[in-house]
Amino acid sequence: MAPKVLVLNGPNLNLLGKRQPEIYGYETLADVADTCRRVGADLGLDVDFRQSNAEYILIDWIHEARETAAAIVINPAGLSHTSVSLMDALAACACPILEVHISNIHRREEFRHLSHVSRVAAGVICGFGTNGYSLALRHLATSLQANPT
Amino acid sequence: MAPKVLVLNGPNLNLLGKRQPEIYGYETLADVADTCRRVGADLGLDVDFRQSNAEYILIDWIHEARETAAAIVINPAGLSHTSVSLMDALAACACPILEVHISNIHRREEFRHLSHVSRVAAGVICGFGTNGYSLALRHLATSLQANPT
Amino acid sequence: MAPKVLVLNGPNLNLLGKRQPEIYGYETLADVADTCRRVGADLGLDVDFRQSNAEYILIDWIHEARETAAAIVINPAGLSHTSVSLMDALAACACPILEVHISNIHRREEFRHLSHVSRVAAGVICGFGTNGYSLALRHLATSLQANPT
Amino acid sequence: MAPKVLVLNGPNLNLLGKRQPEIYGYETLADVADTCRRVGADLGLDVDFRQSNAEYILIDWIHEARETAAAIVINPAGLSHTSVSLMDALAACACPILEVHISNIHRREEFRHLSHVSRVAAGVICGFGTNGYSLALRHLATSLQANPT
Amino acid sequence: MAPKVLVLNGPNLNLLGKRQPEIYGYETLADVADTCRRVGADLGLDVDFRQSNAEYILIDWIHEARETAAAIVINPAGLSHTSVSLMDALAACACPILEVHISNIHRREEFRHLSHVSRVAAGVICGFGTNGYSLALRHLATSLQANPT
Amino acid sequence: MAPKVLVLNGPNLNLLGKRQPEIYGYETLADVADTCRRVGADLGLDVDFRQSNAEYILIDWIHEARETAAAIVINPAGLSHTSVSLMDALAACACPILEVHISNIHRREEFRHLSHVSRVAAGVICGFGTNGYSLALRHLATSLQANPT
Amino acid sequence: MAPKVLVLNGPNLNLLGKRQPEIYGYETLADVADTCRRVGADLGLDVDFRQSNAEYILIDWIHEARETAAAIVINPAGLSHTSVSLMDALAACACPILEVHISNIHRREEFRHLSHVSRVAAGVICGFGTNGYSLALRHLATSLQANPT
Amino acid sequence: MAPKVLVLNGPNLNLLGKRQPEIYGYETLADVADTCRRVGADLGLDVDFRQSNAEYILIDWIHEARETAAAIVINPAGLSHTSVSLMDALAACACPILEVHISNIHRREEFRHLSHVSRVAAGVICGFGTNGYSLALRHLATSLQANPT
Amino acid sequence: MAPKVLVLNGPNLNLLGKRQPEIYGYETLADVADTCRRVGADLGLDVDFRQSNAEYILIDWIHEARETAAAIVINPAGLSHTSVSLMDALAACACPILEVHISNIHRREEFRHLSHVSRVAAGVICGFGTNGYSLALRHLATSLQANPT
Amino acid sequence: MAPKVLVLNGPNLNLLGKRQPEIYGYETLADVADTCRRVGADLGLDVDFRQSNAEYILIDWIHEARETAAAIVINPAGLSHTSVSLMDALAACACPILEVHISNIHRREEFRHLSHVSRVAAGVICGFGTNGYSLALRHLATSLQANPT
Amino acid sequence: MAPKVLVLNGPNLNLLGKRQPEIYGYETLADVADTCRRVGADLGLDVDFRQSNAEYILIDWIHEARETAAAIVINPAGLSHTSVSLMDALAACACPILEVHISNIHRREEFRHLSHVSRVAAGVICGFGTNGYSLALRHLATSLQANPT
Amino acid sequence: MAPKVLVLNGPNLNLLGKRQPEIYGYETLADVADTCRRVGADLGLDVDFRQSNAEYILIDWIHEARETAAAIVINPAGLSHTSVSLMDALAACACPILEVHISNIHRREEFRHLSHVSRVAAGVICGFGTNGYSLALRHLATSLQANPT
Repeated sequence: MAPKVLVLNGPNLNLLGKRQPEIYGYETLADVADTCRRVGADLGLDVDFRQSNAEYILIDWIHEARETAAAIVINPAGLSHTSVSLMDALAACACPILEVHISNIHRREEFRHLSHVSRVAAGVICGFGTNGYSLALRHLATSLQANPT
Repeated sequence: MAPKVLVLNGPNLNLLGKRQPEIYGYETLADVADTCRRVGADLGLDVDFRQSNAEYILIDWIHEARETAAAIVINPAGLSHTSVSLMDALAACACPILEVHISNIHRREEFRHLSHVSRVAAGVICGFGTNGYSLALRHLATSLQANPT
Repeated sequence: MAPKVLVLNGPNLNLLGKRQPEIYGYETLADVADTCRRVGADLGLDVDFRQSNAEYILIDWIHEARETAAAIVINPAGLSHTSVSLMDALAACACPILEVHISNIHRREEFRHLSHVSRVAAGVICGFGTNGYSLALRHLATSLQANPT
Repeated sequence: MAPKVLVLNGPNLNLLGKRQPEIYGYETLADVADTCRRVGADLGLDVDFRQSNAEYILIDWIHEARETAAAIVINPAGLSHTSVSLMDALAACACPILEVHISNIHRREEFRHLSHVSRVAAGVICGFGTNGYSLALRHLATSLQANPT
Repeated sequence: MAPKVLVLNGPNLNLLGKRQPEIYGYETLADVADTCRRVGADLGLDVDFRQSNAEYILIDWIHEARETAAAIVINPAGLSHTSVSLMDALAACACPILEVHISNIHRREEFRHLSHVSRVAAGVICGFGTNGYSLALRHLATSLQANPT
Repeated sequence: MAPKVLVLNGPNLNLLGKRQPEIYGYETLADVADTCRRVGADLGLDVDFRQSNAEYILIDWIHEARETAAAIVINPAGLSHTSVSLMDALAACACPILEVHISNIHRREEFRHLSHVSRVAAGVICGFGTNGYSLALRHLATSLQANPT
Repeated sequence: MAPKVLVLNGPNLNLLGKRQPEIYGYETLADVADTCRRVGADLGLDVDFRQSNAEYILIDWIHEARETAAAIVINPAGLSHTSVSLMDALAACACPILEVHISNIHRREEFRHLSHVSRVAAGVICGFGTNGYSLALRHLATSLQANPT
Repeated sequence: MAPKVLVLNGPNLNLLGKRQPEIYGYETLADVADTCRRVGADLGLDVDFRQSNAEYILIDWIHEARETAAAIVINPAGLSHTSVSLMDALAACACPILEVHISNIHRREEFRHLSHVSRVAAGVICGFGTNGYSLALRHLATSLQANPT
Repeated sequence: MAPKVLVLNGPNLNLLGKRQPEIYGYETLADVADTCRRVGADLGLDVDFRQSNAEYILIDWIHEARETAAAIVINPAGLSHTSVSLMDALAACACPILEVHISNIHRREEFRHLSHVSRVAAGVICGFGTNGYSLALRHLATSLQANPT
Repeated sequence: MAPKVLVLNGPNLNLLGKRQPEIYGYETLADVADTCRRVGADLGLDVDFRQSNAEYILIDWIHEARETAAAIVINPAGLSHTSVSLMDALAACACPILEVHISNIHRREEFRHLSHVSRVAAGVICGFGTNGYSLALRHLATSLQANPT
Repeated sequence: MAPKVLVLNGPNLNLLGKRQPEIYGYETLADVADTCRRVGADLGLDVDFRQSNAEYILIDWIHEARETAAAIVINPAGLSHTSVSLMDALAACACPILEVHISNIHRREEFRHLSHVSRVAAGVICGFGTNGYSLALRHLATSLQANPT
Repeated sequence: MAPKVLVLNGPNLNLLGKRQPEIYGYETLADVADTCRRVGADLGLDVDFRQSNAEYILIDWIHEARETAAAIVINPAGLSHTSVSLMDALAACACPILEVHISNIHRREEFRHLSHVSRVAAGVICGFGTNGYSLALRHLATSLQANPT
């Protein structure tokens, strides 16, 4: 059975592609979800793609993933910089965690340079656009094969 | 049709007028809502007044307002100082945003001096008591007329 | 009638005893709840024990407690360090508030040394393991008796 | 007799409307003074509108106002961030003080985020353009009526 | 034989109950010592209660305790925030150490928020008044039984 | 001929004794001037007592004093914390400079703890009330005698 | 002709795989170079893989790349945190720049959290092990195709 | 009976006049004591002059003074900047406390600019040489007369 | 007609050459003015050289210069580090601004390293002695010629 | 014989005029070198103009200059902010050192505001474009004449 | 007569070799004292080796040493980081002072990186184990010979 | 065969004894090298003494030493405070590393107080002049004997 990868998206990411698309591109979060599922399928991964604006729902999903997921890919959005609770939830997972940011957070305002999530993630990828999700999945496909649970 | 103004209130504001009224006054949030609706009606604005203790509900309402509101008035309360997600939701709105605080936050504890919301609001009014809401509406009535969308 | 004490638990505490029990112990949050209720009963206190991963639910419960509880014991977990809203909700309570942390937060990462909740709590106990809850209840039994509302 | 409101303007505000009017608008400080006087008259307030580039003249005027004014509205401009003396002068007034900034100082350089004057003002309004003066007067009309000296 | 618990008190605690008793209460340090000894006896602990204004005497007593005590309860008072030597002495003890503060140090001046002793204590209790000592003893009674040396 | 001592007073000190005298006392700056002149006369010093709300006038007086005064006593008030220019003017004087503050600035807001003037003053006296002026004069009487120019 | 990608490696990376291989793995920088060249070939990229311990040689290579390379992948190692010159050299390149770190620098010492290079890189990937290089190449293959120079 | 004034001197002040007297002057601490006693006698004060290198002895003397002294003059020397315990002991005294430093601590190293003792002293005098003691006594003579206990 | 260059000098510069000339040199501000006028004449510039100890006079002169001057050379002296108002006045000028300091401010006290004026000046020259004025004029002669208004 | 002036240029300055010339201008470092040599010749100075991307080569050249040069003009570029070694090398030179930056570093990112080199340079000129080199040479011509070695 | 060297040891060093000797080694402070005396004898130095947990005793010994010792070797232990008084006592000694730490304090907690004593010591040696004492003595033997008092 | 000790010297140390010898002494780096080799020989150590102004050459030598040296003694000079790369190179060595500074860096400018190299060195010696090298060698002779590789 294909290992399950939970792909989580934090607050405001549901707006992707809906705001000034002539600038930011027309790709919506649904498009990203489709790409992730398709790329996952190609790599032998069962991608479960979700988004919520609520910190507690993300935490609940992470708790759930402790039993069911082989890995977590997370774009914590604005919660990256403010949520110790999200970090603690992730720290309670034994599976590998990869953090994705669509933009390069180090070129933005200073308060976006620190991500609590980065303290518990295995790796972080930022500024690769939505392609960051696919690259994270690709990395998991390789590393989960190398270190099967 | 009267332009719609979403008036948002953050955590704990539902307690207004219920705590030590002999000190803080007997005006409740319902009273403020009534005043806002009445003042709005006088100014030709359709005021939609809401409160939530949940950050994600505020975010959801702001997302919704992207389609439906001509302006947002927000008293983010304690979230002012801690929520990057709320700021990001507001930043995704094209309409003008005014921030209201009932007390003068600059005379309170130092951690209340910084408001993330102020980085994306057009204007900030604090320390004018609950009258701040009415003044914000009045300002919008003028400026929306001057710059109709 | 026995005075009611609301015992609140913040995000991720539902995982207690479920993660690496060989290290952290096999005591679950349900066990802690049982102990609290039993110790409370012995001390003449009616313990209402709750947990939520959602900040707004904790805030709602605290608002509710303003009418119904004689005291609050709270382990705010990760929200200790980030939630001004939680602090503000507690500040609106007239009853005594005791803060409990299972581990000694002063021996952990530096960002865990500051708790917003400590600014409004009457007392703080940390590093006494789950026994901290019982000690807090015991203290309330004495002090509520000494200063009945 | 109409209560007197002293409206003070700090350094460089005499340039208003004279610099890049195609960008900042053609409204001069004289226009703002006219509007303030007219709005004041409508509200039953006697507006005394002044500007100086000299800190000591502003201080002298504030000292004078201790005897003669029912309220002060002040746009301290660059002195907001640097003058403890101005703050001390205002702190010596028993009447209400409202601080106005035409732009939202929280969206500008970091050294503009702290205003010494905000520590002694009852309220602060910024980013409402020159309309901030009128709103401050309107607020005073209401509050002076409610709390006549 | 009952395990010995050394209860140490730092500078100025000898004044307890002697200063503005109408405000701080009439309980003296001798009263606290009596309560500790009595509570200890009830719990099967041999309480050795001491106070000194001298850092070096506290250090000497801690060195001594390395051979003789099963646990240490310490209220380091003003030395909490300034004495690395006291912290180092405690760090050289294998037995459990509990730190007690009568007031909630997190509600006092900022320099009182950091306690060097908290870095080496197993647990910290503050703001529980003099009852903190009894609770600490109670905790030791349980934990020493569970983990006899 | 009696050596001349210039006693300078900064912004807002002209209000002394005029604001809440039931709290701060009824002694005005004119009273302080009288006392200084009388004490000076007793000590063989010719006291020239002045006050200005303008930084530049204080600077001009200090420049003047370079030729005419044997010593300067200065209460820089709010300028203490903000004026490098005042400090530079004083640094250009060869005569001894004593700094006086009526209140203990170390017990007030943190931004009042640093005085630029203290970097160039020979001595600083604060919290001795208006008596600080007399004590400074007394000190000058002794030291000028010991080290006549 | 295949677009050329310059893959640069900073100080000490020549030691890869030679130090405690039982812990860090047996993969050497030569192995990484081979993988990069092979992956590049598969993706239609001409990979030029280099390493130097000298900042100036890295700068020289970057200057050279302004004429010859379609993209740069750089692992600046210790220079990330200290070299403004390297950042300036990269900023002078019009081609896309991707930054790679083998380990997650956000889980290491605090001085490693800031990378000057991140200010000018399009994207950053860290903690993906040596696979980060391949993922960066893969991303370039896609994006160079989408935006051919 | 003459009111008693305790004059306390902290660590290293016993060396006064013994180190590089050609630079610092030949006046020893015994000389200062003599002057203080003589000046005190002239002013109707009973001066008790002491010095110790031990923080705890200074604290003991301050505790003692709570019963016996009408005022305390203290030169805390190096303890000014490091001893919270000394500050706490002084804070427990109802009588006025004056702080004296022989040199101007604001012209010395930055860590000497903050004195914990200044937070609880009524006044501070520094840089007046050993004359500061006499001036402090003189001030007490006046103020004790004005506000007899 | 020769373009006019306003050369402004801030507080205390009127003392130039009058204080310890054997150390700082015998050149007075009048000498510098003469040199500037002569050098200006040689370069085809009409130099208007002024000094004031008053911030507001400098601001008034800068406002005036908006209409009349082709460039401003300013040595803000102590105001460099403290005056946002001066910076704002300069920022309102369209003409080029050059900042001059006689000494190298980066070798002096740390608070002199930041100049608000440098944020709005085109260029800064410090440590070139009074020759800095002439060099600034020389630069203006070239650049004004290159970019005539 | 004409005194020799070593003009040093740090990393990346070899790119001058080669990057976006339509914006930054077409003047190359070779042009600057020519101008410097020509201006030097006019002033009676023998200009030795060099550039290196390597810190150690700059240091070697500075060491060499200790024997051969009458003065050093240096544009340290990115090394300004990071190289203590360069500063130390310059500090070992007895001859005057002038620091040049083409742009005004105080209007750029904050990390560019501090230059280690400024601590040892006699003077600093920035924001005068490439003309800064000529002005520095001109200053040396005058000052070397005035103080011949 | 052999020059006397006072070797001082601060708080907790009396525990050396008594705590977890299987880890820290079995060498006690008495052993170190023996080694120092023996090495001293070999080098022609009269070693006086002392330890105290009391800051004031160390200060007293240092005062005494002003008359009797040719040099001081001091391991201030925890007082290094907190005692200005100890630093001041050492600063009053004309003889050379060497500071020894057994461990490398720069690899320990951040608050151990700053030693007040290092500001007045001629040299500092840390991380050389107890051999640091011998090396310090050896250095003194050489340097005292070279610069006999 | 004698164990090899690599003695490394960073930038500018080649100037030793060549700059103001009447102040700093006439001992050159060649003299230090001779002393080191001689002392090494006496101790049974093969000393390889080198200096470079180039960070990369020092790094190359350290890499080389991983195979060939039994220990490293390094005076990193200005690189101590700025080079993470040097620190990383040293961290990759299994052999003991001792850091030497000729002067006491804690008595110099604040930016010299932090040495990155100290984080990876076993021990640090500073302020012992050039004798520090010999003492480091002496320590290695003892410790290498005790713990032969």
